[in-house]
Amino acid sequence: MTDKIGIVGAGLVGSLLGISLKQKGFDISLFEKRKDPRKTKIHEGRSINLALSRRGILALQAVNIFDKIEPLLIPMKGRMVHDVKGELTFQPYGNEGQHINSVSRGRLNQTLIEELEKSGVLINFEHKCERVNFEDSTLEFLHGKKEKFDAILGTDGAFSVVRKQMQQLDRFSFSQHYIDHGYKELNMPPLNDDFAMKPNYLHIWPRGSFMLIALPNQDKTFTCTLFFPFEGDISFNSLIDKDGILSFFDSYFPDVLSLIPDLEEQYQKNPASSLMTIKSCPWHKNRTLLLGDASHAIVPFYGQGMNAGFEDVRLFVEMAEKMNWEWQSIPPAFSSARKPDADAIAELALNNFIEMRDHVGEADFLKRKELEAKLQDAHPEEWIPLYSMVTFSDLSYSEALRLGKIQQKVLDGFLDEGSDKCSYDKIIDRFNTLKKRESNINFPSR
Amino acid sequence: MTDKIGIVGAGLVGSLLGISLKQKGFDISLFEKRKDPRKTKIHEGRSINLALSRRGILALQAVNIFDKIEPLLIPMKGRMVHDVKGELTFQPYGNEGQHINSVSRGRLNQTLIEELEKSGVLINFEHKCERVNFEDSTLEFLHGKKEKFDAILGTDGAFSVVRKQMQQLDRFSFSQHYIDHGYKELNMPPLNDDFAMKPNYLHIWPRGSFMLIALPNQDKTFTCTLFFPFEGDISFNSLIDKDGILSFFDSYFPDVLSLIPDLEEQYQKNPASSLMTIKSCPWHKNRTLLLGDASHAIVPFYGQGMNAGFEDVRLFVEMAEKMNWEWQSIPPAFSSARKPDADAIAELALNNFIEMRDHVGEADFLKRKELEAKLQDAHPEEWIPLYSMVTFSDLSYSEALRLGKIQQKVLDGFLDEGSDKCSYDKIIDRFNTLKKRESNINFPSR
Repeated sequence: MTDKIGIVGAGLVGSLLGISLKQKGFDISLFEKRKDPRKTKIHEGRSINLALSRRGILALQAVNIFDKIEPLLIPMKGRMVHDVKGELTFQPYGNEGQHINSVSRGRLNQTLIEELEKSGVLINFEHKCERVNFEDSTLEFLHGKKEKFDAILGTDGAFSVVRKQMQQLDRFSFSQHYIDHGYKELNMPPLNDDFAMKPNYLHIWPRGSFMLIALPNQDKTFTCTLFFPFEGDISFNSLIDKDGILSFFDSYFPDVLSLIPDLEEQYQKNPASSLMTIKSCPWHKNRTLLLGDASHAIVPFYGQGMNAGFEDVRLFVEMAEKMNWEWQSIPPAFSSARKPDADAIAELALNNFIEMRDHVGEADFLKRKELEAKLQDAHPEEWIPLYSMVTFSDLSYSEALRLGKIQQKVLDGFLDEGSDKCSYDKIIDRFNTLKKRESNINFPSR
Repeated sequence: MTDKIGIVGAGLVGSLLGISLKQKGFDISLFEKRKDPRKTKIHEGRSINLALSRRGILALQAVNIFDKIEPLLIPMKGRMVHDVKGELTFQPYGNEGQHINSVSRGRLNQTLIEELEKSGVLINFEHKCERVNFEDSTLEFLHGKKEKFDAILGTDGAFSVVRKQMQQLDRFSFSQHYIDHGYKELNMPPLNDDFAMKPNYLHIWPRGSFMLIALPNQDKTFTCTLFFPFEGDISFNSLIDKDGILSFFDSYFPDVLSLIPDLEEQYQKNPASSLMTIKSCPWHKNRTLLLGDASHAIVPFYGQGMNAGFEDVRLFVEMAEKMNWEWQSIPPAFSSARKPDADAIAELALNNFIEMRDHVGEADFLKRKELEAKLQDAHPEEWIPLYSMVTFSDLSYSEALRLGKIQQKVLDGFLDEGSDKCSYDKIIDRFNTLKKRESNINFPSR
């Protein structure tokens, strides 16, 4: 008899997981608390876009649907850094030909849902999971409806109901940590029927304790996102009235002010949303397993939230197949194998906020970037910058973090000595020595 | 008009808080979900005892009730370390005359409740708080009963309902982290109508990855607590059958085996309970504030959980008095002032587990202890060992942690050089230099 799999949450990760497991021949039931997104208008004030990169693409290719997603993408070759005078500096993300991809969350989700339905899975919309019985793997919904499964997969996001049920259990470790900053989205309309700024970049206005970024949309708008402290002298809390808003943007983002005519209205109308990291351990109870944001939500500063969730799906299906789909043993195995990577990308994402809002505008940072680019040119197999390991490879996040820390140590040492005296070979030698020496040190899993 | 204060939870911290605020003239309502403990028999299988020390005593003295508590105490002058052969080594906790005090949680709580009632506060037992309305400071109970207050204080312990309500709010950071070990209590009966072991010590059987401790009770029994991994080769999970239990105790704790006749029955009957650290931030919303375990539960290995909670009460009342009892401003002020200390004692408590179960039996540890004792003799004002700063002083926990780390660095350096070459003056000089140099570094608050 075909195993019955219940999936809670038809967001990005849940839909991809449904497609993948359906292809493996399972009987899939997908439950989503919201209405069918195809029947509701995507709210224009919050056209969230995401950055799809290597790990996400690999997962989409694994189920042969990347060709359906590709038309939705706008490549971004690197950071376009705006200084306070509006001067631009280009910082490529990787080698020639490497780029990340701006994509609308709404359109991506709709496309995945369509592919899911084409494969024969019907989604139960407006089905809010109320309770999970972990003993007999039963999902309970409003009005007392119950359904039993061979395995339950919780892909219901950062505020996961499945995880909240696990939180009631003894010995379930959990943390939700909010950062001091929040974000507010502002839409930049087209100018003369074209993009108001060059489209193939992630635009960024680093201003030390805060920053603005902009990603292109297919309708030739940009979604600008202000990452800003909630409290303090310069914060969402203090910047409220129209004159204040205009003079703030005039001081820090003059070029943006000129390109968003209704900026102060949008600022006042759009909400300031909070940002958090969620960790949990273990990710499973019996035959129920959490994947994606439900077990490990991260801050958005490395552009890896969705990519990590999609990679969860690819790695989970690979592991489950190797384990002959034994639903009792897969959840603990996946939880302990993947948890260190989730912790690593959570740490990397928090660190990258400081890099984006502050360091990208600094001379030292540029000098280091330049040295790293030269190292990679001279030793392309041996020196891959951290950003590239995370974004353009499928090396585990925890190994990328480990190598990145060693790279930083090596570069610190050589930059202290004065870069004139540096020989690239010496740097690579030192890196390779440390890489081997420290390779037995495990990452603490929390 | 007298301010109305609602306190949720009549455990140790809630009762002491009630006594203290009643003395200041407020109108106190105390709600407790359990039945009156004076009307229920204390369950003998789980006669939890705690270690009352300086900080707790100071808080009891501040409300003039320490003389009521003192008769309940059994002084413990130091650790009595049992090796596998049953050989004993005494390690004093502090100077001559310094000791910690074994006390029964149940008796202590009953005494506090009696003092509270004598002061004119009646406790509403069997009142389970169901909801807190943070906007108008209203508590809601079963059957729809509601009551509005000028301030609400949540002292309802590690599984606090008040905190769970706060967890629903945006930007409330929270973590619950379970450690790999749990604990099981075993009761050691009197021998020939007297204590079966010397009473004025905390007995400890350090065995590396696990340990047993025993604290004396006034009925001449000892409560022994086995701290043991939940999983693995030697764990609660694997040690189940009678023969296994007996042969395990015979190998690791032979002297205990001979003093607890029904050991295997107790082991099989008594539960293995889990241990966790809880952190939250902030500790307040509007006029509602969490105190004690509700905001910062810790593992028991420094014997500071109750002492930290009692110190919360003393510091809170002192601060509130200085702030003229302005209930709108006190909660955020207390939360941000006290949070670094709660984080510090959480860290110290986790570290002390490794010291207790492992290091206390090691030669290096004893050598260091000896050196520290000599340093303290030679410079009693300048070198106070970490354990004494935590246990026998009211220095803030965060400052104790900071100084303890510097002490460790200084001792590491000198022990590396060979202790023969050490001059105490040199160590003190080095300590004082680092103490000043690093005094501007704040502890990360999480």
